Amino acid sequence: MDRRSFNRRLLAGGAAVAGVTAVGVASAPVATSATTAAPAATAPAGGRVTHITLFAEKLADGQLGYGLERGKATVPGPLIEMVEGDTLYIDFENTLDVDVSLHAHGVDYDVASDGTRLNNSEVPPGGKRTYTWRTHAPAKRADGTFQPGSAGYWHYHDHVVGTDHGTGGIKAGLFGALVVRRKGDPLPDKTFTVVFNDMQINNLTMGPDLKATVGDRVEFVSITHGEFYHTFHIHGHRWADNRTGLITDPGDTSPIIDTKIVGPANSFGFQVIAGEHVGAGAWMYHCHVQSHSDLGMAGLFLVYKPDGTIPSYEAMHHPAGAEAEKSAKTAHDAAKAMGAMPGMDMSAGSMDMKDMPGMRH
Amino acid sequence: MDRRSFNRRLLAGGAAVAGVTAVGVASAPVATSATTAAPAATAPAGGRVTHITLFAEKLADGQLGYGLERGKATVPGPLIEMVEGDTLYIDFENTLDVDVSLHAHGVDYDVASDGTRLNNSEVPPGGKRTYTWRTHAPAKRADGTFQPGSAGYWHYHDHVVGTDHGTGGIKAGLFGALVVRRKGDPLPDKTFTVVFNDMQINNLTMGPDLKATVGDRVEFVSITHGEFYHTFHIHGHRWADNRTGLITDPGDTSPIIDTKIVGPANSFGFQVIAGEHVGAGAWMYHCHVQSHSDLGMAGLFLVYKPDGTIPSYEAMHHPAGAEAEKSAKTAHDAAKAMGAMPGMDMSAGSMDMKDMPGMRH
Amino acid sequence: MDRRSFNRRLLAGGAAVAGVTAVGVASAPVATSATTAAPAATAPAGGRVTHITLFAEKLADGQLGYGLERGKATVPGPLIEMVEGDTLYIDFENTLDVDVSLHAHGVDYDVASDGTRLNNSEVPPGGKRTYTWRTHAPAKRADGTFQPGSAGYWHYHDHVVGTDHGTGGIKAGLFGALVVRRKGDPLPDKTFTVVFNDMQINNLTMGPDLKATVGDRVEFVSITHGEFYHTFHIHGHRWADNRTGLITDPGDTSPIIDTKIVGPANSFGFQVIAGEHVGAGAWMYHCHVQSHSDLGMAGLFLVYKPDGTIPSYEAMHHPAGAEAEKSAKTAHDAAKAMGAMPGMDMSAGSMDMKDMPGMRH
Repeated sequence: MDRRSFNRRLLAGGAAVAGVTAVGVASAPVATSATTAAPAATAPAGGRVTHITLFAEKLADGQLGYGLERGKATVPGPLIEMVEGDTLYIDFENTLDVDVSLHAHGVDYDVASDGTRLNNSEVPPGGKRTYTWRTHAPAKRADGTFQPGSAGYWHYHDHVVGTDHGTGGIKAGLFGALVVRRKGDPLPDKTFTVVFNDMQINNLTMGPDLKATVGDRVEFVSITHGEFYHTFHIHGHRWADNRTGLITDPGDTSPIIDTKIVGPANSFGFQVIAGEHVGAGAWMYHCHVQSHSDLGMAGLFLVYKPDGTIPSYEAMHHPAGAEAEKSAKTAHDAAKAMGAMPGMDMSAGSMDMKDMPGMRH
Repeated sequence: MDRRSFNRRLLAGGAAVAGVTAVGVASAPVATSATTAAPAATAPAGGRVTHITLFAEKLADGQLGYGLERGKATVPGPLIEMVEGDTLYIDFENTLDVDVSLHAHGVDYDVASDGTRLNNSEVPPGGKRTYTWRTHAPAKRADGTFQPGSAGYWHYHDHVVGTDHGTGGIKAGLFGALVVRRKGDPLPDKTFTVVFNDMQINNLTMGPDLKATVGDRVEFVSITHGEFYHTFHIHGHRWADNRTGLITDPGDTSPIIDTKIVGPANSFGFQVIAGEHVGAGAWMYHCHVQSHSDLGMAGLFLVYKPDGTIPSYEAMHHPAGAEAEKSAKTAHDAAKAMGAMPGMDMSAGSMDMKDMPGMRH
Repeated sequence: MDRRSFNRRLLAGGAAVAGVTAVGVASAPVATSATTAAPAATAPAGGRVTHITLFAEKLADGQLGYGLERGKATVPGPLIEMVEGDTLYIDFENTLDVDVSLHAHGVDYDVASDGTRLNNSEVPPGGKRTYTWRTHAPAKRADGTFQPGSAGYWHYHDHVVGTDHGTGGIKAGLFGALVVRRKGDPLPDKTFTVVFNDMQINNLTMGPDLKATVGDRVEFVSITHGEFYHTFHIHGHRWADNRTGLITDPGDTSPIIDTKIVGPANSFGFQVIAGEHVGAGAWMYHCHVQSHSDLGMAGLFLVYKPDGTIPSYEAMHHPAGAEAEKSAKTAHDAAKAMGAMPGMDMSAGSMDMKDMPGMRH
C-alpha cells in the first residue's frame, strides 16, 4: 500500500491491508518514508467521536469473523485505529446463530460494553448492540500521581462463544487489532496484524506473505490467542521493547529485541523501516518455539527493492508453501534422529514427565 | 478496607486484606484517594529495624501456610511490606512434622537466610530460626556505576518441602507477597495478593472476590508458582509495565498493558484507581490462557459505587461460583464443537505433537 | 578469570570462560572491580573490521558445536563480542557430514548471511562461506525518528540441521552468545553464558558451576532454545530488566527482578557485582518451573571470599551433583505425596486436560 492509499485508509477506512480491512479514527496526514528528508507524519490530536458498524459473521469456510460490512468479515477482523481522546461507537450486529460479543483490551468502557455474560453485554442471534470505547491521554491526577494514557497496541475479541471466556469464538476467528496512538506518534506506511492463534498464524496453515518496499515504515501488531505460549521473531529487523517499539533518543535504555515471548491475549506492536541496514530480502518471521515453526508457524516478510525484485528469493524454487511443507515433514524425523545422539535424548525425560502432576503446560 | 484500617495495618500489622494478614514495616501516613485534591500519601524514608514472628503451620483443610500468629496461618501468607533501608528479623517457627524454610526474592540476605538445604538454612520440625532480610536504596558505586535498589513486588516461599526446590511446600500454600517500597512511592488504600499456583488462584477453586470502592487506590501483587505459564488479565483497568506499575510523567515510554505473561516465581505489582474511566462494575480478572480461565482461573474485582451498589451486577443471577462452574462445564464441549469447524481442527496437530520429543511443555 | 586474562581475552580471543572460548572485537581497556574507587572500564568506540574463523564440528560425545579452531568446538560455542560500529567477517567451515549454517540475532546482515535455506545461505559438508555481521549505533533518521542501535545480548545458532529451522542443530549444541556493546557500557570481569536448551543447561545434565570472587563484575548472558518456556532465577542477586541490566541513575523506573520468563530464542543479559549486599556464598541459579529445577535445571553461582573460601558451602556434603540427583529422585515421590493433600490434587485436572484439544503446550 503506498502513501496515498494509506491516506485514503485513514480517511475512508476502506483499504485492505494484508487481507484485513481497516478503520481509522485518525485524521489524514500523509505518511512519508523514513529515507526521505521530510519529517515522519505523526498522529494528530484526538478528541473526535466516530460511529462504525461491525458485523459478526460466519465465513464461507466455516470460520467466524468480524467485518465492517455485511459479507465482508475477515480473520483477523478489521484493524481499528484511534487516537487518545477519541470515542468510538460500534453498532454491532450478530448474524450468527449463537450469542456473540465484542470485548476490547486497553480502551475505556462501562460494564455495558464489557462484552461478557457476567455484565449482560453479549448479543443474541440476530441482535444489535452499541458498544462504546473511549480513550484518554496521560494526565496528572488531583492527588499528584499520573494516570496512564490509552495508547497501545491492543486488540478485541469475542468473550461468549463456546465458553464464558469466548474460547470457541476466538478459536474460530473472532479477533482483531486495535491500535490507540498518542498525538505525535509516527504513522506507518502500512500495518500488518499477525495473530498467533494456537498453532496457526491468522488461522492459516501458513503464515501470510507480508509485502513491503525497502524504506517503508512498516508496523507490526502481534496478538496471541488460545492455549500456547510462543516467541515472536523476525529476521533482519529489531524493535524496542516499550510502548511504541521505537526509541525516542539515543540514550533510551529500552531493550532492543527481535524475539518476544507471548501468551494468550498479549499484544504488542512496533514499526520498522523495511530492510533498514539489511536491504531487500525474503525475511522470515516465525514462532521460535522449534516445533511450532517446524509445523508451519512461519511466514515471509517480503521486502522488495524499488524495482520490484527481491535478491536471492527464487519464488519458484522456494515458494513459502513448499518450504514449510518440507519443514513440517522433516521435523518429526529430524527430532527422532537427534534424539538418538548422546546428551540430547529428551524422550526418557518426557516419559517421566508424563506421569507427573501438572506437567502438561 | 478504608484508610483508617490501612493506617492501622501499617501501625499494628493486624488488618486482614482479602483473607491475608499483613505486616508493615513502613511508618503510617494516611493514604488518600486519588479523586481528592490532597496529595497521595507516599512511603517514608526507610532505615528501621523490625522484628516479627512467623509460623509455618498445617491448616485445618490440610494445606500448609505461613502466619504471624499461632493458628492464624493463611494461604497466601501475610503481606510483608518494607521500605528501602529497612531491616527485618523474622523469628521463624516450624510447627510442621517436616523440614520447612523461608526463602525470599529481592531482598538482601546472607547464605544463612537463604532458606535452602544447600546452605543449611532450613528448619527442622519444632525448630526455630531467625531469618534476616535487609534492603537498600539505589546508589552510586565507587566505580561510578549504580547499584539497583531493593524496591519491587517480590515474594517469599518455602524451598525445602517435598523437593530441594520446595515444590511440595509451594503447592501446599507456603508462599506470600513481599513489597519493598522506595521513599516517595504512592501508598495504596488496599493491597490484593493474587497467586496463580498451578491451575488455581490463591489455592482456591475460584478466584476470590476482590472488593473496592470507586476511587480507591488499589494495589495488586501478582505472583506465580508451580508448573504453568499464565497471562494475568484484568477487565477495565491497565497499568505500566515498569517497577511500580505507575507512570511518573506523561512522556513515560513504559508499555501500558492489561495482560502480562508470567511463569513460576515471577512477581509484579501495580496500583489502579478502582473504576477510573470505566466506573463501578463487576470486573473480571483471570488467566487469559483459554483453558485455564474456562477451568476456573477467574475471579471478580468488585468495584462498588459509594452507595454500595454495582451496576449490572446481579449477584443472585451471576454469582461468581455459578459463572465459573458453568464455564468449566461448557469448556470441554465447546472445544470439541469448535474442533469440528474447518480451519480450526487442533486435534490432528495435537495427536502428532504427542509423538514428538519435548512437546509436553 | 582475573582482569589480566580478561584483558588478554579481548586482545587475543583465547581465554576460556566457563568452558567457552571467547572472541572479542572490542579493544582492551582493563576492567576494574566495582569495589575499588577506580572508574569501571567501559566499551570503547566501535568501527573496527575484524576477521575470525568458525568451525562447525562434531564433538567427541556426539554433540555438535561451533569453535574458533579445528578440534576446539564447545557447547555453547564461543562468546562473540562486538561494539556498535564494528563489522565482523566470519570465515565459516563445515566439517560435518550434513548441511549447517550460522544465523545471528540482533546484528545487520544481508540475505546472503541469513543462514537459512530460504536464502541459500547454508553451507554443505566440507564447504566454506563467509558470513558478515555489521552493527550500528542509535541515530536520528532523515525523517526525524530514531533508529535503535545494535547493542544487546544476542545469540547465534544453526538454522538448517534437522529442519529448516535448525531444530536438530540447536538441540545438538550449535548455539552461542553474541554480545554487542555500546560505547560507554561497563565491561565485565567475566561473562557466563547460560543456555536453557530444552530441559538442560548448556546441554549438561547439571548446570555448570559458575565461579567468581566477591566484588567481581560478573556478566550473565541467558539464552533459551528448544521447546519449553522457563523462568531464569538467581539467588541473592538481581538486575534491571532493560537493555544492559543496569540502572543509569537512581530514578530509573526499570523493574528490578531476579526471575525472568523466557522462551526459545529469547536472550538477555546483565551484570552483577558478585556477593554485593549478600556476601560470599554458594548461590543457586535455576529454572524456577518447579519440575524443571527438580529434574536438574539448576547450578551454582559460587562466590568466593578473597581467601578462596565460601561460607556454609560444604563441598563434600553438598556437591552440586549429589544435590541435584537427590532432587530429581525425590521430585516424583514428593509430587505424588503432595497430590494426596486436600486442595492440591492436580491429577484430576490433569486428566481432564489431557482430553482437551490444544492442552499440550
